[in-house]
Amino acid sequence: PHVPYSPPRYSEEEMMERSQQFFTLLNQRRSVRFISPEPVPRDIIHNVIRAAGTAPSGAHTEPWTFVVVGDSETKHRIREIVEEEEEINYKQRMGDKWVNDLRRLRTNWVKEYLDTAPYLILVFKQTYGVLPDGKKKTHYYNEISVSISCGLLLAALQNVGLVTVTTTPLNCGPQLRLLLRRPANEKLLMLLPVGYPSPDATVPDLTRKQLDDLMVFV
Amino acid sequence: PHVPYSPPRYSEEEMMERSQQFFTLLNQRRSVRFISPEPVPRDIIHNVIRAAGTAPSGAHTEPWTFVVVGDSETKHRIREIVEEEEEINYKQRMGDKWVNDLRRLRTNWVKEYLDTAPYLILVFKQTYGVLPDGKKKTHYYNEISVSISCGLLLAALQNVGLVTVTTTPLNCGPQLRLLLRRPANEKLLMLLPVGYPSPDATVPDLTRKQLDDLMVFV
Ligand SMILES: Cc1cc2nc3c(=O)[nH]c(=O)nc-3n(C[C@H](O)[C@H](O)[C@H](O)COP(=O)(O)O)c2cc1C
Ligand SMILES: Cc1cc2nc3c(=O)[nH]c(=O)nc-3n(C[C@H](O)[C@H](O)[C@H](O)COP(=O)(O)O)c2cc1C
Repeated sequence: PHVPYSPPRYSEEEMMERSQQFFTLLNQRRSVRFISPEPVPRDIIHNVIRAAGTAPSGAHTEPWTFVVVGDSETKHRIREIVEEEEEINYKQRMGDKWVNDLRRLRTNWVKEYLDTAPYLILVFKQTYGVLPDGKKKTHYYNEISVSISCGLLLAALQNVGLVTVTTTPLNCGPQLRLLLRRPANEKLLMLLPVGYPSPDATVPDLTRKQLDDLMVFV
Repeated sequence: PHVPYSPPRYSEEEMMERSQQFFTLLNQRRSVRFISPEPVPRDIIHNVIRAAGTAPSGAHTEPWTFVVVGDSETKHRIREIVEEEEEINYKQRMGDKWVNDLRRLRTNWVKEYLDTAPYLILVFKQTYGVLPDGKKKTHYYNEISVSISCGLLLAALQNVGLVTVTTTPLNCGPQLRLLLRRPANEKLLMLLPVGYPSPDATVPDLTRKQLDDLMVFV
């Protein structure tokens, strides 16, 4: 069955103001790689994940699982897995070009934030679903849908003053899936350490494209 | 060079309230397939695209181009291309299973909104970049980055009371790329018709997963 839909309607002035405020909020977001160990109330994490769960998804499959790790030992084990793989990525697997492209960001394979952040959110995409009768259910466009939901998660975090860095830990998926006992249909898509920034946090001095460089009007 | 970063800091009460409000806002979002022809100020569209352009991207490549189509003839030509391909998708290409999975949504290949929406936003991913010397630049994780930016775009639209439906027009990419004269490194990822909902808009009566079905705590 279908139901009527009428969202709130704003005046053009309100729309203009709201759109500017929202841009200002999001434009303050930066990927932060120095995260304070200060605790963050768990309910806030629940709410940002609820926000992520409102994303659209191909054929409404909602193909996401957000694993929130607050346990110190598990965080440390994740750090060991990620650093071991990342060291190989930087030193052998990826080649000079990749290392060079990342130089500006001054990133390397040491990821202290995996210990210090109060929470690590590991985002899994469900590559297929499992029906009650055990049959597989196709999850159309699952990676795109989960990435959209991560966009909502980032906006929700920014909106409460928490920081993260979007990471895609190369080659760590299988080990992290086993560590976290996720089923075979789930594949790791992103790992987001979440918390307040460290008091002395710094970020690369990057700029963003201006509107004319990202939009074309027809 | 790196620079200090300290975003606004809120009290725990404020965080709780802001996170609830943001969830409530996003939870009102629905994919709307009935869009009013009422005009929308172009500046609002600029601001929502600016918001999308704040997304993180692999190695800060910003691999997105947002093509905003307001011209009626171009919209109509897009409709013709999409409907022709979608009719083949529904009738031949995709098989009964796909058609069945979509039945609940009552979608079909007729896409009136492609004419009626004041704007169509076609989101292209830049699969590689082109350096000043003509060499190719790798765009790591470009599809994920662009999908995240679409998540921000959806949040920005919802925040001003505009609606859209996230679509991935199957097999239409090459024709639409040529129609819009986009370069060969750009591939269509999504097409979003944008406007106010029609006064009599309806949506499928779907529910979303509850927190326990999308989050796992460790
Ligand atoms: C990647 C992706 C592709 C989609 N493709 C289509 C599409 O081609 N046509 C359509 O009508 N809806 C499409 N949708 C919208 C979904 O059907 C919709 O998000 C889902 O039914 C949940 O409804 P909601 O967005 O109202 O929460 C798509 C959504 C996503 C995320
Ligand atoms: C898909 C994706 C993967 C990323 N992977 C990493 C990563 O593995 N490690 C890292 O430090 N940053 C990673 N980033 C963050 C980018 O480097 C960052 O978004 C970019 O430099 C722009 O900076 P900003 O987010 O502060 O605007 C990733 C971002 C995206 C979108």
